[in-house]
Amino acid sequence: MISVSVLGTGNVGMHLINAFLGNSEIELVQVYSRRKSSLKFIENKVDTTTSVCSLKSADIYIIAISDDAIPEFSSQLNLKNKLVVHTSGGSSIKVLKTNGNKGVFYPLQTFSKEQSIDFKSIPICVEAENNEDLILLKKLANIISNNVFMIDSEQRKHLHIAAVFTNNFVNHLYKIGFDICKENNIPYEVLYPLIQETAQKIMHAKPDNVQTGPAMRNDKVIIEKHLNLLSGEKNKIYQLLTESIQATYGKKL
Amino acid sequence: MISVSVLGTGNVGMHLINAFLGNSEIELVQVYSRRKSSLKFIENKVDTTTSVCSLKSADIYIIAISDDAIPEFSSQLNLKNKLVVHTSGGSSIKVLKTNGNKGVFYPLQTFSKEQSIDFKSIPICVEAENNEDLILLKKLANIISNNVFMIDSEQRKHLHIAAVFTNNFVNHLYKIGFDICKENNIPYEVLYPLIQETAQKIMHAKPDNVQTGPAMRNDKVIIEKHLNLLSGEKNKIYQLLTESIQATYGKKL
Repeated sequence: MISVSVLGTGNVGMHLINAFLGNSEIELVQVYSRRKSSLKFIENKVDTTTSVCSLKSADIYIIAISDDAIPEFSSQLNLKNKLVVHTSGGSSIKVLKTNGNKGVFYPLQTFSKEQSIDFKSIPICVEAENNEDLILLKKLANIISNNVFMIDSEQRKHLHIAAVFTNNFVNHLYKIGFDICKENNIPYEVLYPLIQETAQKIMHAKPDNVQTGPAMRNDKVIIEKHLNLLSGEKNKIYQLLTESIQATYGKKL
Repeated sequence: MISVSVLGTGNVGMHLINAFLGNSEIELVQVYSRRKSSLKFIENKVDTTTSVCSLKSADIYIIAISDDAIPEFSSQLNLKNKLVVHTSGGSSIKVLKTNGNKGVFYPLQTFSKEQSIDFKSIPICVEAENNEDLILLKKLANIISNNVFMIDSEQRKHLHIAAVFTNNFVNHLYKIGFDICKENNIPYEVLYPLIQETAQKIMHAKPDNVQTGPAMRNDKVIIEKHLNLLSGEKNKIYQLLTESIQATYGKKL
């Protein structure tokens, strides 16, 4: 049994709380939030507090708050010899300013409050300053997930960028595609199967091997046609990504 | 029973042939390819020909060849009063130069020769010059797919661009994400669940409502950090897509 406290009730915090609550190998000791109203949903299920001075004893304290608040918040924690971790993809282990031992417990997924999620499939990237803590973090991660990776701060910096490309930017391309449909009275649902298949394909083949389209086959006529139909940012994005595909695969512009 | 001939044995042609062959409501009359070797795989199952002069009578002739070859090839077809369609997202109905009736039968999906695909879920976009032919095309499309849309040439031009954004360009962003992982000794499988979830989410919520990340929350510190770690095209793409997200959602740069 590993005892854990979660500090923060945002998207990541809430999903972790739910994953821990339902698990017999984990004792959720306490949930902290600076706002009492944020603890309402959990009050009947677990001990809660709005004071960092009232934290109870636990094996691991998981800070799940916004990136820029981690240094200041963690400096207030007096948890000597305890393991304190953050959950941020964008922050080094060094942003933790607690007097406790430091680590990272980063679930690599896009969380929404509304949608429940099966933690088993979520990759959890762990890091710790010493080996004993790393073993403990891996143990906790393995209880709730089948995908545990050891990723140090240097790697995580880059992994976070990869996640921005494959999630944030991809979602923005979906938005552009949907907008184009809307502007032309095409139901955007027509794009669903293409989007799903595109995401499925790279589970079985490298993106290099399934890249298709006008840029890839250097179809200048179609590229020109498309650019003429696009203005503003859409035009710039089309041009830059076309150039990038052509440079990647050695196609001539 | 609708009788159909398929002209062309590339990716789209092959998948159509397979969908038609397995269907009791469709008679696959003949398959044409200019190369005899391309017909080998189908010789025992259906009549084949390498000559446009030997085409047998069918209700619909489906041209599935590369976009730029359609005008010249279709001009060779002497199929007066027959319905001749192409399968191209990037081409107007007008590129057909046959003396027959004209139409379009555009399955909106990314096809690979290696991967079999369930046509039932593939959107098929149909267009025809006259109503009778449109009814016939819709009937054929409905036999093999549950997703049939009427899309005219003007709309299809834009739909094709939307498909470039949501398939070709998205796949390229996957590639960039995987490359970043590789350069930093991170197994790129760590990105799989994020990619799947990103594609799943927009089936239930608009991309606008699930856009997250440093650009969306105007996190200048992280954006700066990321740009410092990226060079060349990756840097340019990061910058442009960040600007585009911020412009879309009215965030300040």
